[in-house]
Amino acid sequence: MSGKFIVIEGLEGAGKTTAIKTVADVLKQNRIFDLVYTREPGGTPIAEALRNLIKNGLDNEPLTAKAELLMFYAARIQLIDNVIKPALSKNQWVIGDRHDLSTQAYQGGGRQLDNQFMTILRENVLDGFKPDLTLYMDIPPGLGLKRALARGELDRIEQESLIFFDRVRNRYQELAQHDSSIITIDASQPLEQVTQMIRQTLKTWLIKHGNQ
Amino acid sequence: MSGKFIVIEGLEGAGKTTAIKTVADVLKQNRIFDLVYTREPGGTPIAEALRNLIKNGLDNEPLTAKAELLMFYAARIQLIDNVIKPALSKNQWVIGDRHDLSTQAYQGGGRQLDNQFMTILRENVLDGFKPDLTLYMDIPPGLGLKRALARGELDRIEQESLIFFDRVRNRYQELAQHDSSIITIDASQPLEQVTQMIRQTLKTWLIKHGNQ
Repeated sequence: MSGKFIVIEGLEGAGKTTAIKTVADVLKQNRIFDLVYTREPGGTPIAEALRNLIKNGLDNEPLTAKAELLMFYAARIQLIDNVIKPALSKNQWVIGDRHDLSTQAYQGGGRQLDNQFMTILRENVLDGFKPDLTLYMDIPPGLGLKRALARGELDRIEQESLIFFDRVRNRYQELAQHDSSIITIDASQPLEQVTQMIRQTLKTWLIKHGNQ
Repeated sequence: MSGKFIVIEGLEGAGKTTAIKTVADVLKQNRIFDLVYTREPGGTPIAEALRNLIKNGLDNEPLTAKAELLMFYAARIQLIDNVIKPALSKNQWVIGDRHDLSTQAYQGGGRQLDNQFMTILRENVLDGFKPDLTLYMDIPPGLGLKRALARGELDRIEQESLIFFDRVRNRYQELAQHDSSIITIDASQPLEQVTQMIRQTLKTWLIKHGNQ
C-alpha cells in the first residue's frame, strides 16, 4: 500500500483553504496522520521561484501566455518528482492546493490556449501521473472574487475579468463531468454545509478505496 | 525591409564570443549599424531569472530534464516576443548567442529527450519563427572543453560528460546538414582562419540576401 494524492481545486474565494483543513481532519480521524501539504505552482525551491515569476512578474515585463503555461508545467514536474512521488512511495498522503486541473481550467479555459497542444504537453510532462481524488469547489466567479477581494490584494491572474473566470469555471465543470476521480462540491452554500459535504464525500471515498 | 536574426551556435569553447564580434564587424562594414545582441537562455528580466535557475539551480534541488526543457522554451518565447520581434520590426539586426538549435542539440541530442515531443513543443511555442542565418561553430568536445576550462569554473550543463557532448555535437552536425540556413564553420582551426571563414561566409550571405 502507498499513500494517496488528494487535490483541492476551484476558483479564488471558493474556500480551498478551509477545505484542505477539513480533508486533513477527516484523514486524521481515519488514522491517516502522515500528511504532506503542497501548493501549486510551488512546493520546491525551484517551483516557488517559478511561482513568484508567474504571480508577480519581473520588472513589468509582459509574461506571454505560452511562457506562463510552460512555467506551470516546469514547476509541476519539479514538485511531482521531488516531493509528491517520494512522499507517496513512503506511504504519506499528499493534500494539494491546486494541481493540473487548474492549468487546464485557467490556461485552457481562461486563456483559451490550444487544447491539442495542452493535451500533448500534459501527457508528455506528467506521463500519466494524476491525483487519486480531486475535490472541485464550485462557485460562481462573482461570489468567489467578492470573497477573495475581502482578503486583500489580488495577484496578476486574480486580476483577470469576470468573463475570464466564467470560462475557467465552465472548463472546470466540463472536466469534472468527464472524470470520475473529480467530485464537485457546491461551494456557494454556507460554510457549515460545505464542510459537511466535504466530510461526507471523503468518508464515502475512503470506504470505497479500502481505507475504512 | 526588416532586420535579420543571425545566430551563433556551438559547444562551449567553440569561440562563439569571438564569432559574434566578427559578425558585428562585417555587418558594420556593410553599413548595418543598428545591432541588438541577445543571449539564450536570457535577454529579458524573466528569461534571465530562468537562465539563473537553469545554470545554477536553487538549494541543490535536482532540476528534471523536462523542467529544464520547458524553462528554456519559456525563456525563448519571452525573448522572441519582447525583444527579437520588436527589434526586427524596427529594422534592427539581431545577433544571438545561441537560440533554438542549442535546445535541439543539448536537450534532444545530449539529454536524449523524446524527439516527437520536442518537435511539437517547438512548433507550438515558436510558431514558425527561426533565425535568418545560423553560424554553427563546429569543434570536437575535448578541444572545446579544454578552452572552456581555461576560462574558469563550469556551470551545471558544462559539467556533463564527454559522451554527452559527443551526442550534442552529433545532433548539431545532423541538424546543420538538413537546414540550408545553418552554415558550419570549422572552429578547430587557428583563430585567424576561423575569423576569416566567418567573414567570407557572412559577406557571401549578405550579397545573396540583397544586403550587398
